[in-house]
Amino acid sequence: MATPALPDGDTVTGESFSADKYFATQPPPPSLEHDVARVKEFLQRQLKEQRKVVLVTSGGTTVPLELNVVRFLDNFSAGTRGATSAEYFLKAGYAVIFMHRQFSLQPFSRHYSHSTHPFLDFLDVTEPPTPSSSSSSAPPDITVRPSERVQLLEVLSAYKAVQRAGTLLTLTFVTVNDYLWLLRAVSQEMGVLGRGCLFYLAAAVSDFFLPRQKMSVHKIQSGKGSLHIEMDQVPKILKPLVDEWTREGYIVSFKLETDEGLLIPKARQALARYGHQVVIGNDLHRRKFEVVFVSPKSPHSASEPSQSPSAAYEETWLRIDLEQNPHKEIEEDIVAELVRRHGLWVDGGARTVA
Amino acid sequence: MATPALPDGDTVTGESFSADKYFATQPPPPSLEHDVARVKEFLQRQLKEQRKVVLVTSGGTTVPLELNVVRFLDNFSAGTRGATSAEYFLKAGYAVIFMHRQFSLQPFSRHYSHSTHPFLDFLDVTEPPTPSSSSSSAPPDITVRPSERVQLLEVLSAYKAVQRAGTLLTLTFVTVNDYLWLLRAVSQEMGVLGRGCLFYLAAAVSDFFLPRQKMSVHKIQSGKGSLHIEMDQVPKILKPLVDEWTREGYIVSFKLETDEGLLIPKARQALARYGHQVVIGNDLHRRKFEVVFVSPKSPHSASEPSQSPSAAYEETWLRIDLEQNPHKEIEEDIVAELVRRHGLWVDGGARTVA
Repeated sequence: MATPALPDGDTVTGESFSADKYFATQPPPPSLEHDVARVKEFLQRQLKEQRKVVLVTSGGTTVPLELNVVRFLDNFSAGTRGATSAEYFLKAGYAVIFMHRQFSLQPFSRHYSHSTHPFLDFLDVTEPPTPSSSSSSAPPDITVRPSERVQLLEVLSAYKAVQRAGTLLTLTFVTVNDYLWLLRAVSQEMGVLGRGCLFYLAAAVSDFFLPRQKMSVHKIQSGKGSLHIEMDQVPKILKPLVDEWTREGYIVSFKLETDEGLLIPKARQALARYGHQVVIGNDLHRRKFEVVFVSPKSPHSASEPSQSPSAAYEETWLRIDLEQNPHKEIEEDIVAELVRRHGLWVDGGARTVA
Repeated sequence: MATPALPDGDTVTGESFSADKYFATQPPPPSLEHDVARVKEFLQRQLKEQRKVVLVTSGGTTVPLELNVVRFLDNFSAGTRGATSAEYFLKAGYAVIFMHRQFSLQPFSRHYSHSTHPFLDFLDVTEPPTPSSSSSSAPPDITVRPSERVQLLEVLSAYKAVQRAGTLLTLTFVTVNDYLWLLRAVSQEMGVLGRGCLFYLAAAVSDFFLPRQKMSVHKIQSGKGSLHIEMDQVPKILKPLVDEWTREGYIVSFKLETDEGLLIPKARQALARYGHQVVIGNDLHRRKFEVVFVSPKSPHSASEPSQSPSAAYEETWLRIDLEQNPHKEIEEDIVAELVRRHGLWVDGGARTVA
């Protein structure tokens, strides 16, 4: 049995898997076929109703260390960015495929976290007024506390409207393997929309994984010294996404860094490597009020030719002032800017075709 | 800067920290003092009202790999066992300190997971009937769907009763370091209850950690080959818990295994090593309907002396039949059995004193 614990300090050289090799050697999640059928049906309906569709990925992925999973490596993400953005995309008339980590935040219910804003706290049990004409005891009633009523009505009405319109499809992943298989399948299906589809890849995806072939079957036993894990690199999935799976989609990826100096260089590097449309850079501690859009310069905006890498890319900073406007969510502005850019992209495609 | 990524295969021998060394070298969480003050106040109130108190720990702990946390090692646990048990302890008249992993399940709200049973789905927006005497439009009303009303009334009434009685204190941890500091502080405070306190240690605690001194300040950069993590062993915290922090408490720990054959040997080993009262063993795949209580044989139940280790311990299996009784929760029986045993423990202490 292969084991990732190598107490004697022996090391195996970590491999860098190509996407092809990855999908040829790692097994698909059991729910994949069922999920793909739901996606097909959803996309056909949106096509008929001529809606643009955005795929929002959200939350962190896990890397299980054992086949019978007890321990796993995880990426920090509550899913706030994705869940919040999904709501604004829905408001903007998009249909949303919300592909999220199990138990991470979701649109609408995100307003009622069990930890910070539990709904049981604003429901009351009240005895109904006994009508004077009758003395029979009616069952107690459940009522919403007046202070919470306005917000709940707003959230609930938006939620019910989305349900009636059928514009939200929720998919769930846990491991980085679930995520990779699902992303490939969904993006291939989204091809039917041509330029009408947007990819908003906000999930915090692990850079590393443990191939199934190297996993321990049972819980790794402790007490044998220290834990020593050797993992392989996850394939750079943006490459085949851009080149093969969805050639016309408008693709937005995210970079989260804790070292602000790395933000723009790493965003440019990603654009140069994968050739997609936008990288949204955010610093771990400033991400609630500041992000930067990094994108290739459009040909007509380049006034003079230059060899410097900065000439090939442009940055747009979005900032909000939370002191002035404490309830403002930066995702509102992010989504508005992307809806605008995606509109230009769709028009650009139409011009090319025409 | 120290980094846990050692791409060249260099290894540092993992250390096994004693509890004393651990607390002397790892920093306390910033919220510790505030939490301890809340625990003191809570315990004084329960003492005055002569309630027994149980500390329930629940959910998994994380091991951050970076100081600005992006990646962490985690232990699988939704917190079902702890949250469910806490409800049954409250029902049995105990006061409960519920020390849980942030965002893991909590008593009462556990019935309304946003993923599997979202509360927004059973609330409706309804236009109130317009009284014939007036044509003014009243605001729409929020009502609970009839099919959900009975269960919600039950959960809500129990929740409100607990709030009125003040018998539930909720504490939160994220990292294994938060957990260790909090467990030590709470158990030291619980000493004031003598034998009247029970420890129900259901949290899934990491066996490994990364000392602060070895952590990378920023996000570990990928693209340098594979990820290589070398961690140290978490101190065996049950030892000082039993010997120093809470000498009279009734202590229940849990063993989760995926290899059933290890369950009883490892439970006995833990009892032999730490000298506490019960290990509840559960297999990952059978834990919803089967657990085993392993405990030292009471002196009068040992009919003949023997050298075999099995003679020193006894096992009691609890099983429920989920086909016959699909809504039964095994935690109801676990808690009933522990309440019985803890009662004997308290009486035993009284006899010793008398």
